[in-house]
Amino acid sequence: MNAKIIAIGDEILQGQTLNTNGNFLAQKLTELSFHVDKMCAIGDNKPAITKALNESIGFYNLVIITGGLGPTSDDITKKVLSDYFDGELIENEIVLQDVKKFVEARGFGLNENNRKQALVPSTCELVRNPNGTAAGMLFEKNNTVLVSMPGVPFEMRQMFDETLIPLLKKHFEFPTKCIKFVHTLGIPESVLSHKLEKFEAEIPDNISMAYLPSPEDIKIRLSAFGGFQKRICEQIDELITKLQSILGNYIFGYDDDNLETVLSRVLKENKKTVATAESCTGGRIGHKLTLIPGSSEYFNGGVISYSNEAKIYILGVKEQTIEQFGAVSEQTVVEMANGARKLLNVDFAVAVSGIAGPDGGSEDKPVGTTWIAVASADQTIAKVYKFGSRRDINIRRAAASAMHLLLNFIQNKM
Amino acid sequence: MNAKIIAIGDEILQGQTLNTNGNFLAQKLTELSFHVDKMCAIGDNKPAITKALNESIGFYNLVIITGGLGPTSDDITKKVLSDYFDGELIENEIVLQDVKKFVEARGFGLNENNRKQALVPSTCELVRNPNGTAAGMLFEKNNTVLVSMPGVPFEMRQMFDETLIPLLKKHFEFPTKCIKFVHTLGIPESVLSHKLEKFEAEIPDNISMAYLPSPEDIKIRLSAFGGFQKRICEQIDELITKLQSILGNYIFGYDDDNLETVLSRVLKENKKTVATAESCTGGRIGHKLTLIPGSSEYFNGGVISYSNEAKIYILGVKEQTIEQFGAVSEQTVVEMANGARKLLNVDFAVAVSGIAGPDGGSEDKPVGTTWIAVASADQTIAKVYKFGSRRDINIRRAAASAMHLLLNFIQNKM
Repeated sequence: MNAKIIAIGDEILQGQTLNTNGNFLAQKLTELSFHVDKMCAIGDNKPAITKALNESIGFYNLVIITGGLGPTSDDITKKVLSDYFDGELIENEIVLQDVKKFVEARGFGLNENNRKQALVPSTCELVRNPNGTAAGMLFEKNNTVLVSMPGVPFEMRQMFDETLIPLLKKHFEFPTKCIKFVHTLGIPESVLSHKLEKFEAEIPDNISMAYLPSPEDIKIRLSAFGGFQKRICEQIDELITKLQSILGNYIFGYDDDNLETVLSRVLKENKKTVATAESCTGGRIGHKLTLIPGSSEYFNGGVISYSNEAKIYILGVKEQTIEQFGAVSEQTVVEMANGARKLLNVDFAVAVSGIAGPDGGSEDKPVGTTWIAVASADQTIAKVYKFGSRRDINIRRAAASAMHLLLNFIQNKM
Repeated sequence: MNAKIIAIGDEILQGQTLNTNGNFLAQKLTELSFHVDKMCAIGDNKPAITKALNESIGFYNLVIITGGLGPTSDDITKKVLSDYFDGELIENEIVLQDVKKFVEARGFGLNENNRKQALVPSTCELVRNPNGTAAGMLFEKNNTVLVSMPGVPFEMRQMFDETLIPLLKKHFEFPTKCIKFVHTLGIPESVLSHKLEKFEAEIPDNISMAYLPSPEDIKIRLSAFGGFQKRICEQIDELITKLQSILGNYIFGYDDDNLETVLSRVLKENKKTVATAESCTGGRIGHKLTLIPGSSEYFNGGVISYSNEAKIYILGVKEQTIEQFGAVSEQTVVEMANGARKLLNVDFAVAVSGIAGPDGGSEDKPVGTTWIAVASADQTIAKVYKFGSRRDINIRRAAASAMHLLLNFIQNKM
């Protein structure tokens, strides 16, 4: 089954808006076993929309359009679709009630613009929108199912998951499938793929494997379509068990996990608390940890010790340590971690000190050199990392590596 | 002049990679006065690439393709282009020397794969790549200029600016233009556009204005194409002067500015230092400030006081203050700012305490309520903000608002 994704919006073509909807839909449709052949962004005008429909209907099993459904006059998608699919715009009672409920919950009454949003082409199936006033539409013609949804990302995403997937299941027969992700960190892609050469060669033919690298992790995706559901999931679980024995604690999570959610889970489960002492990461670790709702349960806080004075007077690093070994050194980062642990009265602390660049490097300690330490009451360990030359990437990698070292340290203690 | 942007890559169609190249090129081409009619992503295979060429050549003045130029076998773009434009792949001495220099600088010798990268279609103009081994190509056919560049974002971006723009200027006659951006914060879009109704009505016909909103700011873009360069820039400068008198210090920057670069400039110019005390923003302000190279010159550090204990024992907030007024209150945030200023021995400190959500709200202080204070030796001010219900957006808005309040405070003192 092939699919095409179309975004309508001049703001995308002028580079004002990044087309994240396309990326979301590409992921979701691939996971549903569609083969996405093409993604496009086109202008918010009748000729462009009509041309896109002509190039799509009859050529793809599924076409998803986002955007162009707002109440203002420059959003003309609904009218073009209604004409194209031989319908007429009529007021839909379900949509009217949805819109009414939506605006009333915000303390407003129904106005003319809202009322216009209840007009829906007579030839479509409704795709209800739980988060906004623009309803989605599903049409069918020449063996193509075409879906139109609003472009506001959080409305569109929830609609896709909650109201569109059940409709798609009525129109398409999806093969059985199993897709799982394994998240790794601390091992470069070239070393990882070398380590997994034998593993890859032995993967059954019905299962595909892909590496998805980012500065913060490398994900391994294992996927199978078709066959008995239970069997393919067992096959993939067996492969994951194998990966665990090959990669050990380079693996930090699975599927929707990330470092902050895994840390959150481990800290909550074990009722432990944590603190940070950040130099080159400048607060990024604290920021990441506190993106998780309820993180105050285990994160007491941290110190951004960007100056030597902050390291000395707040964290209690010895002046002599910095003089003798430098701010980016095993000795300093160990004292930072111990200082943060005591200061914030926590079970575990993580500390980072590195040279993010572009300046500050030396022959001994080139830009990218980063020391990370983690401490508990009875043990402190430290490790040096050599990142690259780009400041922003170094900061991201240092923060992720610190969270990973902290996670492994805690898991070893529990 | 119309343009089309094509990204080649299965990783985009499967949702593994967000197509940021398209967004970059859309911005740049719009600024060059091209009208981008279409952006697409297609698969890394001969039929898809050939179809895209057939749909583009003769229909657009400019087509830019990114991706599909790596040394591995699944990157077949170069061969397809060479055939399509009636050329043959021949070793290009300039590219060979570029590649050689590039790999030797990294301590490697030329291998078979690198040598293949020096093969270039005989019918193209070269677009040199200062940052990698894949050269770009420019072809011309049926009044369409087609450019192919590698997909690695930082290679492509530098190529576009440094080597492609001069080539495009040989093929296209660009109109004169003037584009300027004014960055505002602290005023919702609806209020902003209301405040600027009269201003907008009086804008000369040759100048366009657009609002570009994000959670962290609202940019106003003023642009003019055609006419005498000096005249249109003067027109836009006059409009900016008008905006300054209407919007005052809701404006925090221009063009490529952001809050951290403007703060960096102001702090460096005045040789002042700054510190942070962050509760709900969890370290994001520190992270943002330290993204700027050389920020250690003015940023001494900060405290992430996520728990009441951290507020009391590190920042010196009085226990009684928190008991009486709560952690999210004017009194607490003022004591946080004063505490951070003294603790980190700086000229200015900024403190944030808010309810990011989803839990922790009350009737009195609903989710989104955020107190921000800034302090110097002789003055401390505090302000309350009411953000929305989404945790991640609240954190971003709180951090940006805190940096904005800090900036205004410093500017008033200087």
